[in-house]
Amino acid sequence: MPETVRHDLMRTTNMLSVFDCIRKHGPVSKRMIQEETGLSWGAVSTFSSVLLERGVISEAGRVDAGAGRSAIAFDIDLENNLIIGIDANVIGMTGVIIDLKSRVKTTLHQELCSHRIEELLEQMKRIIRELVATAPNPAAIKGIGVAFPGHVDSQRGYSVMARQFSSLEPLDVCGILGREFGLPVVIEHDPNCSALSEQLFGAGQGVENLLFVRLSKGIGMGIILDGAIYHGNSGATGEIGHITMDPDGEECYCGNHGCLEIYASSEAILKRCARAVRMGDAPHLAQLLGEGRHLTLDTAAKARDHVIRDIFYRAAEYTGIAVSAAINLFDPQVVILGGELPEIREYFYEHLQEVLLRRVWNRRQIDLRTSTLGQSSAAVGAASLFIQQAFLSAVGM
Amino acid sequence: MPETVRHDLMRTTNMLSVFDCIRKHGPVSKRMIQEETGLSWGAVSTFSSVLLERGVISEAGRVDAGAGRSAIAFDIDLENNLIIGIDANVIGMTGVIIDLKSRVKTTLHQELCSHRIEELLEQMKRIIRELVATAPNPAAIKGIGVAFPGHVDSQRGYSVMARQFSSLEPLDVCGILGREFGLPVVIEHDPNCSALSEQLFGAGQGVENLLFVRLSKGIGMGIILDGAIYHGNSGATGEIGHITMDPDGEECYCGNHGCLEIYASSEAILKRCARAVRMGDAPHLAQLLGEGRHLTLDTAAKARDHVIRDIFYRAAEYTGIAVSAAINLFDPQVVILGGELPEIREYFYEHLQEVLLRRVWNRRQIDLRTSTLGQSSAAVGAASLFIQQAFLSAVGM
Repeated sequence: MPETVRHDLMRTTNMLSVFDCIRKHGPVSKRMIQEETGLSWGAVSTFSSVLLERGVISEAGRVDAGAGRSAIAFDIDLENNLIIGIDANVIGMTGVIIDLKSRVKTTLHQELCSHRIEELLEQMKRIIRELVATAPNPAAIKGIGVAFPGHVDSQRGYSVMARQFSSLEPLDVCGILGREFGLPVVIEHDPNCSALSEQLFGAGQGVENLLFVRLSKGIGMGIILDGAIYHGNSGATGEIGHITMDPDGEECYCGNHGCLEIYASSEAILKRCARAVRMGDAPHLAQLLGEGRHLTLDTAAKARDHVIRDIFYRAAEYTGIAVSAAINLFDPQVVILGGELPEIREYFYEHLQEVLLRRVWNRRQIDLRTSTLGQSSAAVGAASLFIQQAFLSAVGM
Repeated sequence: MPETVRHDLMRTTNMLSVFDCIRKHGPVSKRMIQEETGLSWGAVSTFSSVLLERGVISEAGRVDAGAGRSAIAFDIDLENNLIIGIDANVIGMTGVIIDLKSRVKTTLHQELCSHRIEELLEQMKRIIRELVATAPNPAAIKGIGVAFPGHVDSQRGYSVMARQFSSLEPLDVCGILGREFGLPVVIEHDPNCSALSEQLFGAGQGVENLLFVRLSKGIGMGIILDGAIYHGNSGATGEIGHITMDPDGEECYCGNHGCLEIYASSEAILKRCARAVRMGDAPHLAQLLGEGRHLTLDTAAKARDHVIRDIFYRAAEYTGIAVSAAINLFDPQVVILGGELPEIREYFYEHLQEVLLRRVWNRRQIDLRTSTLGQSSAAVGAASLFIQQAFLSAVGM
C-alpha cells in the first residue's frame, strides 16, 4: 500500500477521533482532546480549526486548565447539525431528527399507506418533508439515514430486494432520496440499525460482539462483530427468520418450507390463535374477543387456553432453537431480544430462556438481554450510522 | 491511543509485510520489495538487514535490475526455518513439518492410542519427537502449531474443554508442550486450521469470507471473516454439529437432544447402517458384509438398500438445513465442505446441494465447493498459523 494512502487514511481516522471526542466529552479544551486522543498538539489544533470553520463545533466558554488558568472549550454545534433517520418496515414508518449527540429532537410514527415499493418511497419522501418542516432551521439538516428491510446493499446504497414490499429488483433508494432532497443518504438493513442503537444507547452499551434478534411481525437479526456492523459478502446476513424449523412445514413467502417466521412471528402466532378460535379450540380467548377485546399477543396469552399456550410454546421452542444455532455459530458476548414478543413473559420469554439453557453448546456463557429501546430504535440507529460514516464528508471534510 | 503504540504497531506490521513479500515472491531485490510493499527504501533496508541477521532470509544470487544492471536478491532461508504442525482429533493424529513457504517436508499419521487427554498429550509429545528426529537440523525447528478439537481459547493458548477426550477442565496445552520442547506453541480450534489451509492453499484461495464445514466423525465449522479466523467472544464458534435438528431426538454427548451430529456424522450414519443390517432391513449391505467387506460409508452407499438410502438422505437433509442456517446468518462468499462424507456423491452430496438450493434465503448466490486438501490440512493450517502469528517473535523480532 503506498504511503500516501496510509497518510490520508490516518488523517481521516484522526479527524474522526477528534470529532468523536468532542461529541462524547464536549465541552473540552484542546489539551483535553490531546490527552484523550493521544494526537499531537499540532494535529488537534488543525482538526479543531477545520471543524470550527465547517460549523460542526463552536467555542463554548472556558474550562478550568489547572493552576488557576482557563482554556477555550469546544463543543458540538448541536442546533446547526441535525440528521434525519427513517425506518420503513412492515410494522409502519418511523421518522426522527437527531442531533450530533444522537439526542432525538422529533419523532413521527405512521401506518404504512401501502405495501408497494413505489407508494412506500412516496411516503418516505412525505415523512422526510414533514420532519424538515419541524426543524427551526432546515439548512441544519445534513443528511439522512434509512433503515430498510429485505436485502440491502449498504455499500452501493440500494435495496437489492424487499419481498415484503413486492420489490424484486434492485432500487437505488439513496440516489432517489438524495436527488429529491439534495442531501447525502446512507441505507442499512433494519435489524443492523437496531443492533447499532443497542450498542450505542441500549442493552449492549460497550459490547463489541452482539446479536440483536427482532421478534415481531417479521424475525430478523442484526450482527455487531468487533464493534462494527457485520455485512457478510453481499449484505444478506442475519436471516434467522428463514432457518428451517420443520422440513415438511408450510411454504414461506421466501420459497422455502417450514421457516421460523411461519411459526414464531407475531403475525403467525396471531393467525394460529384466530384459527383456534374459529375451530372452537380456544373458548376463553373466544369469550374475550366476544367482549370486544382485540386479538393481540397480550389478549391471547391472558386467555390461558391450552391450545393457545401450545402455539406460544412452539413459537418459543423454535425461536430458542434458532437463537441457539446463532449462538453456537457466532459465540457472541451478548444476545439482545427486541420486538413485542419477549414482553409475553410466561407463555414465551421464560420458555425461550429455558430452551437456550438446554440447547446452546457453550451454555456456561449465555448473556441474554431484552431491549429497552422503543419503536424508534432502528430510525435512530440509521441516523447514528450516518453520523459515524458520512457526516464528516457531508460537511466537506 | 498514544503515538508510540501506533509507531510500534506500524513497525511490526511493516516488518511482517516485508517478511510476507519475500515468502511469496522471493528471490526479490530490495527495489522489488519496496515496489510491492510501498515502504520507504530506508524501511526496506532496515527490515531486510534484521531478517538477514536473524537467519530468516539469505542472499540468493542476483536478479535483473533493468538497464543491464543487477541487484542482490533475498529469499527465505528454507532449510533453517521449519515449523511443526500437529492435528489431534477423534479420527487420529497427524504431524507435519513445513518450511516458511508452507511446503510440507514430512508427514506422520497415527491412530489415537487413547481417547483420554493425558495419554493423548503423551502421544502428541511422541509424534513431535519423531518429527524432530526426521529433521536434518533440529535447531531449524522454530515452533509448533496445534489444531485441537472441543473448545479452544487460542488467545490464552489452552484447551477450555474437549469432551471427546474426557477433558472437562482447562488445560494449558501450549505451556505443557512449550516447556517440553523449549519452543513457542500456538493452538487453534481444528476446523479453523482447516479453514485457514483452504484459504491459503485450497478451494478458498484469495477468498476473504468463507465457511469450512468438516463432515466426518464429528461435524465442525471453521470461519474466516475479512481474511482472518473468527473467534467470537470465547473461541466457541462454529458449533454447527450441535444445532438442534429434531427437538425430541436422542440425547447428544453435549447434553442437548437431536443435534445434527446424531444424524449426520459419519459415525452416526455407520451406526444406523449397522442397526439396519441387524434388524434385517438392509439385505444387500448384509450380503456385502457377509462377503468380508468392511462397513464403510462407501460400502453402505454401494449396497443401494432403500433403508440405507434413507439414512444417507436424512443426513444430507439435516446437514443441508444446518449449512443453510449458517449461510443465512453469515452470508459467506464461499462454503467449502471437507471430510469424507461429501465423497458419497449420489446418496449424500447431490441431495445436500439440492437442499441448499431450496432452503438458503439468498439462493442466487451460493458458491459451494469441496475440499481438495488431504488429511493433513488442519496440521498444515496450524503450522501456517504459527508462521503468521508467532514466527517473527519466535526468532526474536
